[in-house]
Amino acid sequence: MLSYSIERILEIVGEGAMTLGTYGGAINGIASLADGDAGDLSFLGNSKYRSQVADCGASVLLLPKDYEGQPRDAQLFILLENPSYALALICRDIESNLYSRPPAGIHPTAHVEDSAVVDPSASIGAFCYVAAGAQIGAQAVLENHVSIGRQAQIGKECHLFPQVIVADRCIIGERNRLLAGCVIGADGYGYAPVEGQHQRLPQIGNVVTEADVDVGANSTIDRARFGTTRIGTGTKIDNLVQVAHNVTVGKHCLLVAQCGVSGSTVLGDRVILAGQSGVTGHVTIGDGTLLYAKSGAMRSTEANEKISGTHGQNANLMNRIYVLQRKLPELFKRFEALEKFVESQK
Amino acid sequence: MLSYSIERILEIVGEGAMTLGTYGGAINGIASLADGDAGDLSFLGNSKYRSQVADCGASVLLLPKDYEGQPRDAQLFILLENPSYALALICRDIESNLYSRPPAGIHPTAHVEDSAVVDPSASIGAFCYVAAGAQIGAQAVLENHVSIGRQAQIGKECHLFPQVIVADRCIIGERNRLLAGCVIGADGYGYAPVEGQHQRLPQIGNVVTEADVDVGANSTIDRARFGTTRIGTGTKIDNLVQVAHNVTVGKHCLLVAQCGVSGSTVLGDRVILAGQSGVTGHVTIGDGTLLYAKSGAMRSTEANEKISGTHGQNANLMNRIYVLQRKLPELFKRFEALEKFVESQK
Amino acid sequence: MLSYSIERILEIVGEGAMTLGTYGGAINGIASLADGDAGDLSFLGNSKYRSQVADCGASVLLLPKDYEGQPRDAQLFILLENPSYALALICRDIESNLYSRPPAGIHPTAHVEDSAVVDPSASIGAFCYVAAGAQIGAQAVLENHVSIGRQAQIGKECHLFPQVIVADRCIIGERNRLLAGCVIGADGYGYAPVEGQHQRLPQIGNVVTEADVDVGANSTIDRARFGTTRIGTGTKIDNLVQVAHNVTVGKHCLLVAQCGVSGSTVLGDRVILAGQSGVTGHVTIGDGTLLYAKSGAMRSTEANEKISGTHGQNANLMNRIYVLQRKLPELFKRFEALEKFVESQK
Repeated sequence: MLSYSIERILEIVGEGAMTLGTYGGAINGIASLADGDAGDLSFLGNSKYRSQVADCGASVLLLPKDYEGQPRDAQLFILLENPSYALALICRDIESNLYSRPPAGIHPTAHVEDSAVVDPSASIGAFCYVAAGAQIGAQAVLENHVSIGRQAQIGKECHLFPQVIVADRCIIGERNRLLAGCVIGADGYGYAPVEGQHQRLPQIGNVVTEADVDVGANSTIDRARFGTTRIGTGTKIDNLVQVAHNVTVGKHCLLVAQCGVSGSTVLGDRVILAGQSGVTGHVTIGDGTLLYAKSGAMRSTEANEKISGTHGQNANLMNRIYVLQRKLPELFKRFEALEKFVESQK
Repeated sequence: MLSYSIERILEIVGEGAMTLGTYGGAINGIASLADGDAGDLSFLGNSKYRSQVADCGASVLLLPKDYEGQPRDAQLFILLENPSYALALICRDIESNLYSRPPAGIHPTAHVEDSAVVDPSASIGAFCYVAAGAQIGAQAVLENHVSIGRQAQIGKECHLFPQVIVADRCIIGERNRLLAGCVIGADGYGYAPVEGQHQRLPQIGNVVTEADVDVGANSTIDRARFGTTRIGTGTKIDNLVQVAHNVTVGKHCLLVAQCGVSGSTVLGDRVILAGQSGVTGHVTIGDGTLLYAKSGAMRSTEANEKISGTHGQNANLMNRIYVLQRKLPELFKRFEALEKFVESQK
Repeated sequence: MLSYSIERILEIVGEGAMTLGTYGGAINGIASLADGDAGDLSFLGNSKYRSQVADCGASVLLLPKDYEGQPRDAQLFILLENPSYALALICRDIESNLYSRPPAGIHPTAHVEDSAVVDPSASIGAFCYVAAGAQIGAQAVLENHVSIGRQAQIGKECHLFPQVIVADRCIIGERNRLLAGCVIGADGYGYAPVEGQHQRLPQIGNVVTEADVDVGANSTIDRARFGTTRIGTGTKIDNLVQVAHNVTVGKHCLLVAQCGVSGSTVLGDRVILAGQSGVTGHVTIGDGTLLYAKSGAMRSTEANEKISGTHGQNANLMNRIYVLQRKLPELFKRFEALEKFVESQK
């Protein structure tokens, strides 16, 4: 962690910030509200923690504009539209200092096939393998042990972390971040039953990711049987997520850890699949649909539906079901008493 | 994509196909019924899409023999027993043209220990590591960054994609396809409680896969505590699947993405574990059992059982439960009205 | 497998063992009760299998002290406090013979940056990459294709299996075992909504694991947004597990395969997350809490709670709900009959 002056902090978060109180020292750390101490910068990003602000010992706090409390002595409030994003801007500055960009060029231990084209401004790290006919764009960074398949294309300013695999003929859009160990373009899972055995259906399509896509560690996105498995602009995929062959994921979706999308399904834009949720194959999920954690969508959904439960119910209904399930023991008891009484009156 | 004549297509799909209509041009692409256009070949693989055939603009369609419609002008129907498999045969031909087999021999950047035995017809790609005493069979292909452990054996005609790991003493059967990043033979998860701590139980067994097994990207199959974790002939495993130590999986099973099998469980033949399903440890799953997506089998099953729900109910019962759950709000309301009425009569 | 004399077996399991019966030969294999044959050693580790002991053909059996049966001819019972742990001690001896420790030093194909510090007793395998400023402790083993980030620290006597990734600035405690393909320190999944897009929140914290932590194959533990994602002493993590950013996992926890913990959640000590379970973000899970397989904790828990069901109910209540759910078809039928009868009396 580096040392930041208040002036530099205000410069980074930009115009539109208002300040309340004073703090004259330097900022040497970032901490949560519960942990913040003198010399730290803290922030209120999730309103759940609002009550912790008053007791926070950090010297500088990033707070939403509507926060009504007052700073302590030697404490500065910076009031902004979006404290999380302001923090992000500060962290981005720290990050760029912590992790300097690796130098352009090809590491001596890497192996790039002759027919591959690597932009001179790209950085190819140790033990990377770039197959025949592949193209690596300007300013792209391949950390170590990255594997790029034949005729694959990596867009400009992409960052591929260690041991990422982009298989043959897949196309990665600009500014994608592919985290360690993810696999783009493994064969889709397709078999046809022939005389009691599963005959493999060759998967000759590819994967295309549009601009600004992130893919998490050890996630897998399969190549299409033919045609393309597509991930839309700005979609962010977490760790250990499965996207099957021939899926289309829309723009600005969030696919949270360990969720899965089955083959040939289409997700609209701004869909959110929470952790460990799943979508069955060959359905269409409307724009803005939200699947709660551990839920499963077994059918197509309309725009902005909220789905809950492993059998994919409307979330409002499912919440009532959860409440009533807890009353089942009592219901059975009362029902049996009632039944007995009615019987006794016959 | 390459260009195929009708004659070549008919040659590939083999005898027994009947044709209806005529198309004299070449085939330059494969497309779904919804996307097919002039010059494309399309197919009806899933009866769900039957109604799309009439509107399909593809020049050639692979259809089941019982399809009753008529082709348009300049459109050819090829009627066969199994259109999906016929398509597979065509795709296999395209695939073999798209992805030429890498040359036999050991890439100069690979490292093979002296005591390992590599068949001269095998191909060992860039940055592969083959440990002491390992054996690589005839015509096997190890793409780049593959890691083969001590005394491990890779059967003939296996294809190991980038960054596959086969750990010490594991044995991979003939014609296996191990997709990128899968791990065969990591230590099983075994601990014994000793004085409040978890003492590791060494895992000194191995993994054996029989012939024609496929393992998906980033899936994990653990070595046995002692003895063998075994995957039967023709079983196909999807991505991000977990098979724990000492499990036996039968022949021709399908383990779909993100499912898991706990330790020492035995799966019979032709078992299907749908996506995100799980089986508890130390149970026996009968031949032909089907676990629906997201279900959990918490007990042994008879042959051909169908299991649904996270607590592993009979699927017919579970389907009734799902329907009745949705009626719980109404049931509670009606019950309370009834109870009130009866009370009022007392 | 090697050959062990009875004397050597007794020496390994240590004092406190009692014997019953006699067997004069050597032990050449380890087998389950069902499979044990002459020359094998077997054991009763799980009381579920107690009835199999009488029929077991193994020559030597490790049994709990309270086992009441008698050995056959030429069969030896070894009665101990903890047969599983005794077996572990034997297996550990076999393991150390099977898998000799790789020699100290840096493999000629590995690449270690100049400013990294590798203890001379450590072993750095083929194609490992150790980045600038990293430190590798005494007796640590990095198998092949391991990737160590900048300023990362690997504790003494750690064992990192093939293709493990420890990212920049993460700190791995003493005697950790990181299984193949796991990723320690990928970016946390953090985004802020800014004008309808997801702006990345840089993740500038790290991961710290304390002593004696195991992490399973292809599991992922994300670096903190700032501060530290921490895994406590003696915690054992299975395969394909997700631990999100800023999580704190206590000591001696068990995180079973395919479970997940969402961001900023705190797990106490001795928590057990069974297979495919999940915990939501920003909650606190009390010491000794048990989540059953496939369950989801959507709230904080008290110490020693038992949680079941995807919506995270108390396990006793959930077990009653499971039973009553199966009776819903009958309840609806009886209710409708009762309602009809009462109506008819109006």
